[in-house]
Amino acid sequence: MKLTKKRIAEIVFDHNDWASRTFDVVLLVLIFGSVIVATLDSVAELRSRFGTTFYILEVVFTVLFTIEYVLRVWLTGKTLRYVTSFYGIVDLLAILPFYLSFFVADVQLLTVVRALRLLRVVRILKLGRYLSEADFISQSLKASMAKIQIFLFTVLTVVLIMGTLMYLVEGPSSGFTSIPRGMYWAIVTLTTVGFGDITPSTPLGQFIASLIMLLGYAIIAVPTGIVSSEMAKRRNPHDLINTKTCHSCGAEGLGVDDKFCKKCGGEL
Amino acid sequence: MKLTKKRIAEIVFDHNDWASRTFDVVLLVLIFGSVIVATLDSVAELRSRFGTTFYILEVVFTVLFTIEYVLRVWLTGKTLRYVTSFYGIVDLLAILPFYLSFFVADVQLLTVVRALRLLRVVRILKLGRYLSEADFISQSLKASMAKIQIFLFTVLTVVLIMGTLMYLVEGPSSGFTSIPRGMYWAIVTLTTVGFGDITPSTPLGQFIASLIMLLGYAIIAVPTGIVSSEMAKRRNPHDLINTKTCHSCGAEGLGVDDKFCKKCGGEL
Amino acid sequence: MKLTKKRIAEIVFDHNDWASRTFDVVLLVLIFGSVIVATLDSVAELRSRFGTTFYILEVVFTVLFTIEYVLRVWLTGKTLRYVTSFYGIVDLLAILPFYLSFFVADVQLLTVVRALRLLRVVRILKLGRYLSEADFISQSLKASMAKIQIFLFTVLTVVLIMGTLMYLVEGPSSGFTSIPRGMYWAIVTLTTVGFGDITPSTPLGQFIASLIMLLGYAIIAVPTGIVSSEMAKRRNPHDLINTKTCHSCGAEGLGVDDKFCKKCGGEL
Amino acid sequence: MKLTKKRIAEIVFDHNDWASRTFDVVLLVLIFGSVIVATLDSVAELRSRFGTTFYILEVVFTVLFTIEYVLRVWLTGKTLRYVTSFYGIVDLLAILPFYLSFFVADVQLLTVVRALRLLRVVRILKLGRYLSEADFISQSLKASMAKIQIFLFTVLTVVLIMGTLMYLVEGPSSGFTSIPRGMYWAIVTLTTVGFGDITPSTPLGQFIASLIMLLGYAIIAVPTGIVSSEMAKRRNPHDLINTKTCHSCGAEGLGVDDKFCKKCGGEL
Repeated sequence: MKLTKKRIAEIVFDHNDWASRTFDVVLLVLIFGSVIVATLDSVAELRSRFGTTFYILEVVFTVLFTIEYVLRVWLTGKTLRYVTSFYGIVDLLAILPFYLSFFVADVQLLTVVRALRLLRVVRILKLGRYLSEADFISQSLKASMAKIQIFLFTVLTVVLIMGTLMYLVEGPSSGFTSIPRGMYWAIVTLTTVGFGDITPSTPLGQFIASLIMLLGYAIIAVPTGIVSSEMAKRRNPHDLINTKTCHSCGAEGLGVDDKFCKKCGGEL
Repeated sequence: MKLTKKRIAEIVFDHNDWASRTFDVVLLVLIFGSVIVATLDSVAELRSRFGTTFYILEVVFTVLFTIEYVLRVWLTGKTLRYVTSFYGIVDLLAILPFYLSFFVADVQLLTVVRALRLLRVVRILKLGRYLSEADFISQSLKASMAKIQIFLFTVLTVVLIMGTLMYLVEGPSSGFTSIPRGMYWAIVTLTTVGFGDITPSTPLGQFIASLIMLLGYAIIAVPTGIVSSEMAKRRNPHDLINTKTCHSCGAEGLGVDDKFCKKCGGEL
Repeated sequence: MKLTKKRIAEIVFDHNDWASRTFDVVLLVLIFGSVIVATLDSVAELRSRFGTTFYILEVVFTVLFTIEYVLRVWLTGKTLRYVTSFYGIVDLLAILPFYLSFFVADVQLLTVVRALRLLRVVRILKLGRYLSEADFISQSLKASMAKIQIFLFTVLTVVLIMGTLMYLVEGPSSGFTSIPRGMYWAIVTLTTVGFGDITPSTPLGQFIASLIMLLGYAIIAVPTGIVSSEMAKRRNPHDLINTKTCHSCGAEGLGVDDKFCKKCGGEL
Repeated sequence: MKLTKKRIAEIVFDHNDWASRTFDVVLLVLIFGSVIVATLDSVAELRSRFGTTFYILEVVFTVLFTIEYVLRVWLTGKTLRYVTSFYGIVDLLAILPFYLSFFVADVQLLTVVRALRLLRVVRILKLGRYLSEADFISQSLKASMAKIQIFLFTVLTVVLIMGTLMYLVEGPSSGFTSIPRGMYWAIVTLTTVGFGDITPSTPLGQFIASLIMLLGYAIIAVPTGIVSSEMAKRRNPHDLINTKTCHSCGAEGLGVDDKFCKKCGGEL
């Protein structure tokens, strides 16, 4: 089989035969590999020992990703549309930092961009069996969005008022040096994270803190309730595939294993 | 179009044409602006650098809010009802602190009141597409209120008994200097906030603490379960698309499967 | 109206006329008062200032509770049954500590028992409108009990294995001085309390800790899911009162405000 | 009744008469006893006082478990299948550490393996009334697995990006010495554990941390929602009372409203 442009496009974009699947797996390994190298490179002692290895690997990864990017730009019909699409920008951001590092002094800022490479995994996963499930979650969240926005606005109002109150009650001696810090503490407390870097020390402050915590206990139920009820209402993607319809009486939602319609007794 | 009293009332109270919508947006910007200024003003280093700017901005905000308040009082038919209403008081509290600061020495206490300005945003949001969603949440919470009250009372009983127990078991050396402090610790632990400012150090104390945490793990499910089941039961505002309207009496929100109007008995 | 034995029993046990309701309210005030006094008495600085007042109040509370206890024993037909019942023991424990304090040296241990007085509030609340709601919660929890027991056993197995692992990986230098302490840390982490009194410091320990936290994130969903689904299944006490049944076709679950049956159109 | 091989097999494998039930209870006591001894043995002060007793108990436990293991190997028909099965390996791991400790120097590593003995309890519990309930939970989790995998992958992407961001913003001075440590902090924060061993100290870092916490607040709803809706959909083992059984083919668990058996088509 010759490597015609059509054949290469199949390997890069499709997921049907062993060649295109091998391409996907190699890409997955490269993406995870490059992210792991970027992560380990930030550990000072590993960098001092394996710094050169890491740099060589980064060069290899970037060259391979560049080849892949050029291939995609060449193979895509509507090039401009790909380049300006979400995945096009993510693909570009995966290789840009390395080339920019020759011109820009502050290399560190480019490290975050390298972490974005992980987003590229989504494209490959999207085409597997996970698609319908991910769709289920994101649709449930989208449907809940308006309610969650209101909820977050309410939380922020509580955070502002409580942060201001604690700033006045506790003051700088307990670490509440400003209203923004008080709000930071209120968020830490209301979300039940509770770092403990700033804590109330006066009895009144501890009393108000107790109220905030009990409030947080009650309102943590709200987003969970919103998403739960939305998901319960929504039909599970699995269930859509897994039901039969009776050809005799038209009853829907019958189990895949059922041999007879439970409504009319007709054979399925 | 002349600025008659009727026209001004339309701009202030309604949300239909571009003039009234501009009024809403300007008000939103002013409210958020004033809250942000009040917040930043509490940061010591920002205050020392931009203190004068912050003060001038605060004067501008207060003058504009005062004009708005006077407008509302003048435009409302039932003035007394507005002034004593929830929104009337919130509107007054938005401007009062500034004027009071000339007479009262302790200006700090007025800062909290300025944070209350954020509550004014609710009025504007109430009239958008968020109304039905916010209604859904608040109705679900109201219906769950009796259950949540019982739940909180149970939690407080557990907190009192556990707080007393830890005060006796751990004692002042671990920070449990009194029963109220023990109760504060029990709330911090039971709500899974876990600051770590007070922690048990004896084996027995750590054992009791473990029991409290596992208990908290089990009972955190209760408020979530209450709100979730309440929301699942309740009709989602979105679902209103899937309802029928009676052509005889115009009753809305009827079930798709209903054959007769439940209000007038007319066939659907 | 004479204070016959029957009349006194009505006042003490019933909740129908103003006399018995006043008795309930006075009892509520006494119970909360005695608990608050016991709590404040544990604060060292308050004790040194108001110690004598607290003691006199405690004497008054105990005398009144003793009179009440004697009344209940006298009024109840089946005295032995009352004395050995849950409420009988709670009532006795409310007064016993004070009398024991004359004979027992270690008065502190009796303080916990005083906190148990709060349990007496339950009896009074039980007879109000909260009964059906509390019943709903406790029935949901009872039905979920077998599942929650399995869940807690699974959690404890995870805690034991993770606690042992962390004890070996981190060792005493990070505070993991023994397996029980490792288990205490695992519970603190798995329940997302996270005090921070013991934290992993080695990279391997932090990696294992991350796995435990992600595990905890996933399994916190289990008890909530159990209780939520149990509550969603169960009929809400409110709903039981608030439905009508059609007398024409026998359709159930109709809204209280409905005037016509939505199934057959018959007038309700 | 003679102790024939068949009789011993009944006692070891079945749970029907008093002899086999006594065997189960004794085994339960031995398992819990051995785990508790291993746990207490790790506490330095207990080891120095009761070290010899602990060692003797460990010898006794191991001898008894060895006898049990030999019995199982002897009694099982398909020996190889048992030895290589999950329970076979767990049974072997329960006794192996002790014998290995004579050859291996690092005894400590064997302690974790001793903790695995707790897994043996599962076999005994499996045959009680908990079976259907545990089945319900594990089936709900299995059905949610694909969704939870996607969710965990999303969480890990967020963790990587946030960990990198905080490493750049906060730097080593606040404890963010590398990206892996930043990711550890992000997991600690996102799961609302919040140890407080690493906390942001710059205003920008605290602002980003606040965003992560609010995000964690919103997405903690997702796994709970997934499991809740899965459990609500699934038939509760308790509900099996409300099912019909087909008299033709004996199929169980048919819906109360079903008119025909879905397995054989027979009228119900």
